[in-house]
Amino acid sequence: MQIYDVTLGVQPDMPVWPGDPSVTLERAKKIEEGANSNVSHLDMGVHTGTHVDAPVHFLPGQTGVDQLSLDVLLGPALVVELSAETEQITADVVHHAHIPSNTRRVLFKTRNSAFWERGEKAFQPGFCGVEADGAQALVDLGIQLVGIDYLSVAPYHKSRPTHEILLKAKMVIIEGLNLAGVPAGLYQLYCLPARLVGSDGAPARVLLMGD
Amino acid sequence: MQIYDVTLGVQPDMPVWPGDPSVTLERAKKIEEGANSNVSHLDMGVHTGTHVDAPVHFLPGQTGVDQLSLDVLLGPALVVELSAETEQITADVVHHAHIPSNTRRVLFKTRNSAFWERGEKAFQPGFCGVEADGAQALVDLGIQLVGIDYLSVAPYHKSRPTHEILLKAKMVIIEGLNLAGVPAGLYQLYCLPARLVGSDGAPARVLLMGD
Repeated sequence: MQIYDVTLGVQPDMPVWPGDPSVTLERAKKIEEGANSNVSHLDMGVHTGTHVDAPVHFLPGQTGVDQLSLDVLLGPALVVELSAETEQITADVVHHAHIPSNTRRVLFKTRNSAFWERGEKAFQPGFCGVEADGAQALVDLGIQLVGIDYLSVAPYHKSRPTHEILLKAKMVIIEGLNLAGVPAGLYQLYCLPARLVGSDGAPARVLLMGD
Repeated sequence: MQIYDVTLGVQPDMPVWPGDPSVTLERAKKIEEGANSNVSHLDMGVHTGTHVDAPVHFLPGQTGVDQLSLDVLLGPALVVELSAETEQITADVVHHAHIPSNTRRVLFKTRNSAFWERGEKAFQPGFCGVEADGAQALVDLGIQLVGIDYLSVAPYHKSRPTHEILLKAKMVIIEGLNLAGVPAGLYQLYCLPARLVGSDGAPARVLLMGD
């Protein structure tokens, strides 16, 4: 069995969403300066790197990331690979992706994964995301979890409609997956977010296990 | 199959190691104040709550938490329950715990889990940890991963000897488990730390699956 770690490494020079804080990860206590041990300090937005969104991210008063169901975060997931020519994920793209009717978790591998493969440090505003009609098509298919290989599931400057449709349908959203090197197909997904109480998002460690 | 989430919730009023930064988890952007979405900001030490230690925590120049082997972080783990009278985990305690010889992962459920059960917010310096001779006994048994139900695997003011012995033996250490409500026995462990590049520690989400 092969394990794919599809998690981005968290480090100071990683790209973050425009306006979000950048990552600070630095040693606050150092053995070389007389401390008993090395102890680092982490300062970041909770939607940094590979992370999950909770309903309260876009829906005021709704639940936080610690309330996401482990039954949805763990289980079979289909990696759907879209061609490099797919600009955005519309309803038409979803309908032509041949997603079997019993599918509950879909991870889209798009042209975005090439950004990670070549180590792009700058934010890429032209990334591929799910349009509002694509989001509705996923809801209509009964999908419970959707993942994407850039920092938002929605195209840039179109965040709200897609997120609202998905989160109102109680869908779990994983953003910032690195699917470079992962062939299309069915895997066992292990998505474990940090247990941040009441938070609108949380960094997650995400693995795919396959043959 | 039953899933036990043995992870502490990360929140501002949780106890932290003396001298470590407290947790800040607050909404930096708010829909109610006109923002497009709610976005929280996290600021904490990496050894907060349920977390793993990397060799570089006590061994300068050694590897960080992103280098820990997934083959060790995932797999069968034995929860050993010690009596409330067990002050500290010595070699004698390890030898009397009847750990089968093929065991690779051990999680100690001690009197500490009662601190979590009753919601203690203050740091508890009298917690139960593994003494240096207990650490050596675990190494001699071929254990590759050890977990404990308080914020350090070593007794208070005795951090270095225990950590050095365990980390030099390449043992993975999980600290801050909440094992209240978990019966002794064999489980499948899923310990997924945040992928913090080069860090001496990282918060982890930890699950036990059993019958």
